[in-house]
Amino acid sequence: MKVGVLASGSGTNLQTLLDDRAIDVVAVASDKPDARALERADAAGVERAVFVRGEYEDREARDAAMAAWLAERDVELVVTAGYMAILTSAFLDRFPQRVVNVHPSLLPAFPGLRAIEQAIAYGAKVTGVTVHFLDEGVDTGAVIAQQAIPIETHDPVELHNALRPLEHALLPEALKAISQGRVRIAAENPRRVVVSATATGSSRPD
Amino acid sequence: MKVGVLASGSGTNLQTLLDDRAIDVVAVASDKPDARALERADAAGVERAVFVRGEYEDREARDAAMAAWLAERDVELVVTAGYMAILTSAFLDRFPQRVVNVHPSLLPAFPGLRAIEQAIAYGAKVTGVTVHFLDEGVDTGAVIAQQAIPIETHDPVELHNALRPLEHALLPEALKAISQGRVRIAAENPRRVVVSATATGSSRPD
Repeated sequence: MKVGVLASGSGTNLQTLLDDRAIDVVAVASDKPDARALERADAAGVERAVFVRGEYEDREARDAAMAAWLAERDVELVVTAGYMAILTSAFLDRFPQRVVNVHPSLLPAFPGLRAIEQAIAYGAKVTGVTVHFLDEGVDTGAVIAQQAIPIETHDPVELHNALRPLEHALLPEALKAISQGRVRIAAENPRRVVVSATATGSSRPD
Repeated sequence: MKVGVLASGSGTNLQTLLDDRAIDVVAVASDKPDARALERADAAGVERAVFVRGEYEDREARDAAMAAWLAERDVELVVTAGYMAILTSAFLDRFPQRVVNVHPSLLPAFPGLRAIEQAIAYGAKVTGVTVHFLDEGVDTGAVIAQQAIPIETHDPVELHNALRPLEHALLPEALKAISQGRVRIAAENPRRVVVSATATGSSRPD
């Protein structure tokens, strides 16, 4: 399954995917021309493109162009790894149940920006990482995988460093499960994602 | 440190405290005359009383009576173990930073009633237990301890059974830490509860 990655920043999650031979990253798109993620794509010999908001009439037009560019490259699965813009339906409708995000908290706790700082400010004793399908809300999509760790620091950088290995483990695992047809949506609850040990025949919602 | 327990229901957390020789439960109060927790108090030879809302002018009057009853019994630390009513400042002001609640989720996720059902409906893959100081909000007080477990069932009864051992471990541990003076509020963030391995001299907020 060909994977496209959207990134706005340093792209450490992108790098993990590029380094994973079981994951076929064929395209990297960014909303920021200076994203370090673009250099990582170049270094890996992966096609990349920039879709700056200001060059399009509106967000929908930008998102439609970005979706078309990925679709031309036969991308079937999209990962938002540190992509900071909200995706509109102009993008999401093109990849139904096929856009995956990784977020540094146990959603629904601490959605949105600065999740790690939010957890520290709250005084939480446990946090973690969530891999979820993207929808039009802010970190509201159905959860594919979560993993928790105790909070043993109140320094955001240290806590982010503690969370990063979880991100780098859970995200590729989720992508492999999807591409192997082991992920489906439960019939009785559209928010419940079932990840099976073996392929279920269809990886689309029931 | 003498402990008072407020309970509305079956009182399984109360039983754990009654069975723990290191915790001195001297009084059990309930808002429900038929709470099974009251029988547990009787069986343990612990004083108990019922404070039914309808017998008081308002919630504040009920809470003031309940606080006075506990204070007469030299209670210094109050635990709400399955106590279903909101406590007003008429109660909380009498026991500042001395009312502890246990909640079956990783707060701030899934506050309020039916936390376990909320977690299942959300499709969460991880949940847990939070022990926190009670304030006037709904499960908004500062967190003393949290522990996570993976969600491996979507049956609320099974999930509650999986969470119960965490409740029964975290709550007594927190009470012992408080009574041993090992719990304080961080100077720089009133939401951050610091639990030390040894006594800090003062267990009151800085």
